[in-house]
Amino acid sequence: MLRKQVIVVVADGLADRPVPKLGYRTPLEVVDFSPISDLLSRSAIGLWDPIQPGIRPGSDTAHLALFGVNPLNNYPGRGPFEAIGAGAVLMPGDIAFRGNFATVDNNLVVVDRRAGRRVQEAEQLVRYINENIGEIDGVRVEVYHATEHRVAVVFRGEGLSDAVSDTDPHAEGVKVLESRPLKPDPNAEKTARIVNTFTRKVHELLSNCPLNAERVRRGMPPANIVLLRGAGKMISYPKLTERKDVSIGKAVAISATALVKGVCALLGFEVVTPEGATGGVDSDLMSKARVAVDFYRKGYDLIYIHIKGTDSASHDGNVEAKIELIEKSLKVLSYIADRVNLEQVVLTFLGDHATPLTIRDHTSDPVPVMVYASDVMADNMVKLTEREARRGTLGRLRNVELFGVLMDYSGRLEKFGA
Amino acid sequence: MLRKQVIVVVADGLADRPVPKLGYRTPLEVVDFSPISDLLSRSAIGLWDPIQPGIRPGSDTAHLALFGVNPLNNYPGRGPFEAIGAGAVLMPGDIAFRGNFATVDNNLVVVDRRAGRRVQEAEQLVRYINENIGEIDGVRVEVYHATEHRVAVVFRGEGLSDAVSDTDPHAEGVKVLESRPLKPDPNAEKTARIVNTFTRKVHELLSNCPLNAERVRRGMPPANIVLLRGAGKMISYPKLTERKDVSIGKAVAISATALVKGVCALLGFEVVTPEGATGGVDSDLMSKARVAVDFYRKGYDLIYIHIKGTDSASHDGNVEAKIELIEKSLKVLSYIADRVNLEQVVLTFLGDHATPLTIRDHTSDPVPVMVYASDVMADNMVKLTEREARRGTLGRLRNVELFGVLMDYSGRLEKFGA
Repeated sequence: MLRKQVIVVVADGLADRPVPKLGYRTPLEVVDFSPISDLLSRSAIGLWDPIQPGIRPGSDTAHLALFGVNPLNNYPGRGPFEAIGAGAVLMPGDIAFRGNFATVDNNLVVVDRRAGRRVQEAEQLVRYINENIGEIDGVRVEVYHATEHRVAVVFRGEGLSDAVSDTDPHAEGVKVLESRPLKPDPNAEKTARIVNTFTRKVHELLSNCPLNAERVRRGMPPANIVLLRGAGKMISYPKLTERKDVSIGKAVAISATALVKGVCALLGFEVVTPEGATGGVDSDLMSKARVAVDFYRKGYDLIYIHIKGTDSASHDGNVEAKIELIEKSLKVLSYIADRVNLEQVVLTFLGDHATPLTIRDHTSDPVPVMVYASDVMADNMVKLTEREARRGTLGRLRNVELFGVLMDYSGRLEKFGA
Repeated sequence: MLRKQVIVVVADGLADRPVPKLGYRTPLEVVDFSPISDLLSRSAIGLWDPIQPGIRPGSDTAHLALFGVNPLNNYPGRGPFEAIGAGAVLMPGDIAFRGNFATVDNNLVVVDRRAGRRVQEAEQLVRYINENIGEIDGVRVEVYHATEHRVAVVFRGEGLSDAVSDTDPHAEGVKVLESRPLKPDPNAEKTARIVNTFTRKVHELLSNCPLNAERVRRGMPPANIVLLRGAGKMISYPKLTERKDVSIGKAVAISATALVKGVCALLGFEVVTPEGATGGVDSDLMSKARVAVDFYRKGYDLIYIHIKGTDSASHDGNVEAKIELIEKSLKVLSYIADRVNLEQVVLTFLGDHATPLTIRDHTSDPVPVMVYASDVMADNMVKLTEREARRGTLGRLRNVELFGVLMDYSGRLEKFGA
């Protein structure tokens, strides 16, 4: 069987709902599809529910499903993936929490759960903690800065458990909580003890940190503690290149977004961030297209191009930017299509989830997907829209089904049965 | 994110199959949709499989799924829900059976499995048993009358098991069975012993009950035993108001039907039966609409209106009554739509399952569903029918998926992932 190279282009947060400013059309209903009109007309289209209808995907869970891992059974909670999104490289068994810089008084009563929210010194504070905290009970601790007051904290060592409670009281005017084991298990007891030591040490460190003295001098609340919530224990994921049900020798992900890069690395992709690719709305998308074509020429089996700007524009509610970025994404697709042998590729364009401009956050709406291969049942569509996609050949796929379909069109899917 | 109030109107057993008397159209294909034509045209429509295609839902399992609990993994069997439908308030751990009044001879051989079927004295017989049976081995026993000869029997106490066999031989001319433990487990052994004591005591009580002497005098078979089948152990359900994946502060169910009221109470709804609401075909539906609007004004997050008459008409094979009740249901919907802020609600109309007039029982056919929210992809439909609904934006949802979609449109659904 001919094995085709698979090229997947994701415009993050692509799908939308009717936008009042666009006369209740969606961005996809107003963009110019002419750069890919020939390719689109020869493609099969459909809808994809990244997890299942009625579940709002994160970028992490959506990417797991897109690349063949059902997150409903294989997800350790947000802690580890927040850490990955903040740049951590996790190992199975690591315990990770989501955390906040916060302000407490002398009795450890929470005064401000977000330490004023805009913690400009967050990067420096994190470095200060990491340089000074040392190991706790033989367990290595790493703090990672996410955004604003948000951090992730990773504990690495033998015999740790995620069955421990939060230290974040999720309210102000009450004391920081002691972490407690959530089941009678020596590992959970040990972990809770370490977490409580972490809290005490971090509070000591931050209370004496010159950066906080400076904050107080400027009339800002000191970021003098880190509150933890949502412990999760990292699990191991099957590498795409080692799976028995699909045949993938080499896979590359081209992205500038830490969370997506982290998920792809977990799944066995090589990860590349081309120069000029920032993950922002001003990212140089054509540099990604050029790199994608390079990897196509090197014979990579699976080439993934992730475009973040569409999602960023959606979170900002910026209609014009989203339209512009979708059109740029189509040019990426067109650039690639013009440079590959269309008889020997499966070329896919989709969103990883919906981020409606009116909602400014991910929703559970299904996303339109376009799959070109020389032998698909073409739908002769002139647009790829939320409304029209449901009439297409692919129907409505969910979760890992789309991955299976792509593997099948590319001749890479093992038979289940005799 | 704006959190919208969710209003759900169910016309029980709404969906149908082609009816010869209607020229092979369904009731939904002939009813007058003008009261909601504007609302309908601005709604998304689709089909819902209450459990999944090819599974015939009960009203209990359908309502569990509608409100976010997958009954495939969370259903203790019919015993407990028959008891709930007969008015019992169950606690987790209770063992409940379905039962029949039956007629046995002096050797406990079953002469009539239904004691003549129409057991007019059933209510009195049940009261007679409850007043005289007392506790068995420290276990409290309650009998509830369902319909005709049908009852439910609840055993409440420590250390009971549902792994016990029926006493109902499911045949006439054979002896009542001894209940046996279905696995080697002291709790199952204890429960079987209690069930057998129950059978003996009930037989004694009923044999000496004046009501039975009177039945015999009138030439009727005495209802002198209760046969038990289908033991189920009540489980606990998460309350909607306590779930972490959705944000619901207050929920109210407006219904006059014991089974639906019971299921909703289990799931954390406040349950209200307005004056004049009977659950029958003559029920005052507008009283439900008025109460719904009251709860909307009180700021309830989830308001559920259950209309039973459509199902009753379907079980009776009464075409005209079903059409009339659907039209009344649409007026309920229209009354509510006229009195709420349509920018701030998610308004849904559907059936809980199909009850085709030609079948007179629940079938596995999917049911049409209409979801209005100000930002749905409207389908511009003029009718909501079994045939047309599949072309709609919602596609075909199953089981708890619809609940997730409603929670998402109302801004109440947590994200799965980062």
